Amino acid sequence: MLTWQKSYVPEDASDVTLSGIAMLPGVGVFGTGSTARVLVPLLQAEGFEVHALWGRSEEEACGLAKELGIPFHTSQSDDVLLHQDVDLVCIYIPPSMTKQIAVKALGIGKNVVCEKAATAVDSFKMVTAARYYPQLLSIMGNTLRFLPAFVEMRQRLLDGYVGEIQVCDVRVYGPSLLDHSYGWTCEELMGGGGLHTVGSAIIDLLSYLTGTRAHRVHGLTRTFMQQNSLIRGIRRVTSDDFCFFQLLMGATGSGGVCCTVTLNFNMPGSFVQEVMVVGSTGRLVARGTDLYGQRNGSKGEELLLGGNGWLGPEVKEMPLPHLHGLSSMVKALRQSFQAHEERRSWDQRPVAMASTFEDGLYVQTVVEAVKKSSSTGEWVSVEIMSKEPDPNQNLCEALQRNKN
Amino acid sequence: MLTWQKSYVPEDASDVTLSGIAMLPGVGVFGTGSTARVLVPLLQAEGFEVHALWGRSEEEACGLAKELGIPFHTSQSDDVLLHQDVDLVCIYIPPSMTKQIAVKALGIGKNVVCEKAATAVDSFKMVTAARYYPQLLSIMGNTLRFLPAFVEMRQRLLDGYVGEIQVCDVRVYGPSLLDHSYGWTCEELMGGGGLHTVGSAIIDLLSYLTGTRAHRVHGLTRTFMQQNSLIRGIRRVTSDDFCFFQLLMGATGSGGVCCTVTLNFNMPGSFVQEVMVVGSTGRLVARGTDLYGQRNGSKGEELLLGGNGWLGPEVKEMPLPHLHGLSSMVKALRQSFQAHEERRSWDQRPVAMASTFEDGLYVQTVVEAVKKSSSTGEWVSVEIMSKEPDPNQNLCEALQRNKN
Repeated sequence: MLTWQKSYVPEDASDVTLSGIAMLPGVGVFGTGSTARVLVPLLQAEGFEVHALWGRSEEEACGLAKELGIPFHTSQSDDVLLHQDVDLVCIYIPPSMTKQIAVKALGIGKNVVCEKAATAVDSFKMVTAARYYPQLLSIMGNTLRFLPAFVEMRQRLLDGYVGEIQVCDVRVYGPSLLDHSYGWTCEELMGGGGLHTVGSAIIDLLSYLTGTRAHRVHGLTRTFMQQNSLIRGIRRVTSDDFCFFQLLMGATGSGGVCCTVTLNFNMPGSFVQEVMVVGSTGRLVARGTDLYGQRNGSKGEELLLGGNGWLGPEVKEMPLPHLHGLSSMVKALRQSFQAHEERRSWDQRPVAMASTFEDGLYVQTVVEAVKKSSSTGEWVSVEIMSKEPDPNQNLCEALQRNKN
Repeated sequence: MLTWQKSYVPEDASDVTLSGIAMLPGVGVFGTGSTARVLVPLLQAEGFEVHALWGRSEEEACGLAKELGIPFHTSQSDDVLLHQDVDLVCIYIPPSMTKQIAVKALGIGKNVVCEKAATAVDSFKMVTAARYYPQLLSIMGNTLRFLPAFVEMRQRLLDGYVGEIQVCDVRVYGPSLLDHSYGWTCEELMGGGGLHTVGSAIIDLLSYLTGTRAHRVHGLTRTFMQQNSLIRGIRRVTSDDFCFFQLLMGATGSGGVCCTVTLNFNMPGSFVQEVMVVGSTGRLVARGTDLYGQRNGSKGEELLLGGNGWLGPEVKEMPLPHLHGLSSMVKALRQSFQAHEERRSWDQRPVAMASTFEDGLYVQTVVEAVKKSSSTGEWVSVEIMSKEPDPNQNLCEALQRNKN
């Protein structure tokens, strides 16, 4: 272990020693959706033991637990959180329920990996909890930060490959994000929609890549498909299937970085993710899991990192960059926990690129600013919450709004 | 000729009969820039005789006239406009000079093909002149409308290939648009910059493709490279090298078409032009001169029109879609004039897709609205000028602005 700590080199799963496996924390997973279904085998492949699974109904939990070989399942969240073999909790459930589980898990002393919450207020409560338990691991499961193409891209940006960063241009196109039946994915207020689901991952990625944050945003969201063959009658989709937004990042005034993001989920049969960073002396483009670069003056693009090394299964619901990123995140978690003798202790370095709960609050704030911009048509300043809003204040404002 | 008029089929240059050549109008060309340099050989190849060339200086005019085999050159505009063999005037000069020549040419009874003017007021004056002489040909030389890929795209859109149009997404990336020496291309107020030069062609194209016009726009322009090795000292570039804008087109409210356009001219060594139209049942994408399509439910894109048939010379300053479009426009002009016995008469059908001066005014209005949006940060309504503004009114406003 000492050698490993001296020069930190990411290891492959095959390097896991028996003693390494023994030190990994037991895992409890919340959720029975497509991410949880992919995550569990990845955890198991890295040597984590998944001891408990929570589902919204007994049936869902039971079915998936059997399928994935998880010994314990429940629909009571406390049964997982208090499970004595569970030291790491992975939360992949609808955004509106995330805050409650994440905060409770930290309070009980468990390490937490979770997806985004539904609102900035929820995100702020998660930040407060994470600050209160700094010895516990608390990261947002934004898998794009772990994707090797973006790790490499960030390093190249730091090394000055593109010179001074001027513009980031991101496009994500794909099929509908809606579930087969009516649920939170259809509801904007429940955290559904392209902006919340995919846009938040991009907002986070852009701040990771550029090392700065957005101070002003502008955007427009649209719901082109308000009904489909499964969601009809009195039901209507309110979450966006098309969204574009601009972020002004870094230095205010003319010196900063302009980011433009276009998300379109009315394009069945394809998944396109292209992230381009243009600077004063060159540019870098990640297409899917591959990284390309071109310096000014050179004739064409060079392939800097080919991501074709993905040998795992393809998953229909999860695009390759997210799948590959999730796999890299699980590897990083293994390395982080493997570094210490005690199964709950972890090393910060292998997960240094992870987004923190503070990043989660920033992302949620930007998402809400884009929504506000879409409804007012104006540029909106990004103001990170620094204290919990008074709920009575909110009530007063709501009443005020209703009066007008 | 009668047979041809019955069923209109575009002909190739090789089909030009001797009598056809005899009926083509003589041409006078304004400009000695890269477009004029490409245009003259294209005209000559189609059987047009170029009788006169105007340049800003005697030297420029003389040099290019010799090179291209044009018998007469001058730096006096009237010498071209009043030339007895000139029936068609092609104006490819800096935007700030275009209105004056175009309006005068129509007044003298010449047919006009010209590039955009510098301001909406100039465009409005051109519209007035064009309305006054409806028997004369007056078209904007927006060559993208003539590119076979876009002609085909428009037809497919009309045929319902994509269903109801939802989103248009356009990207143009390329090297700097600045001239080698300081000039109008560096000056925003002289009609320089990506928005004015390339954006206007895209704005025009989007209204051609969708058959609608923008009613609200939002945008941001930036000048990342304010100085370079050739433009320095007290001189500074004010024209934009990066611009994105959004157009809300067609029906107001949620039913219309959202267009997003990103222009970046800080990318030496490449020219990328991608125009995508996404609808309820499929999408069409023009990449360079090729057209691809994908209907919802199909597994991949199909090539609908390969534009690789371009056999002419490659021109460094002019990207292939514009070059190919210019060539198609010249062919259409030949067909238009060939249809009639009298050399000044023309048939409307072969140039039906051309943008009119009214389209030119619309485009200029949108360009100015995007600039206004960039400075105010707000969505701006597109209001087409319907009467010439009172110059004193302008003066008053300018004084008012200076006071603040």
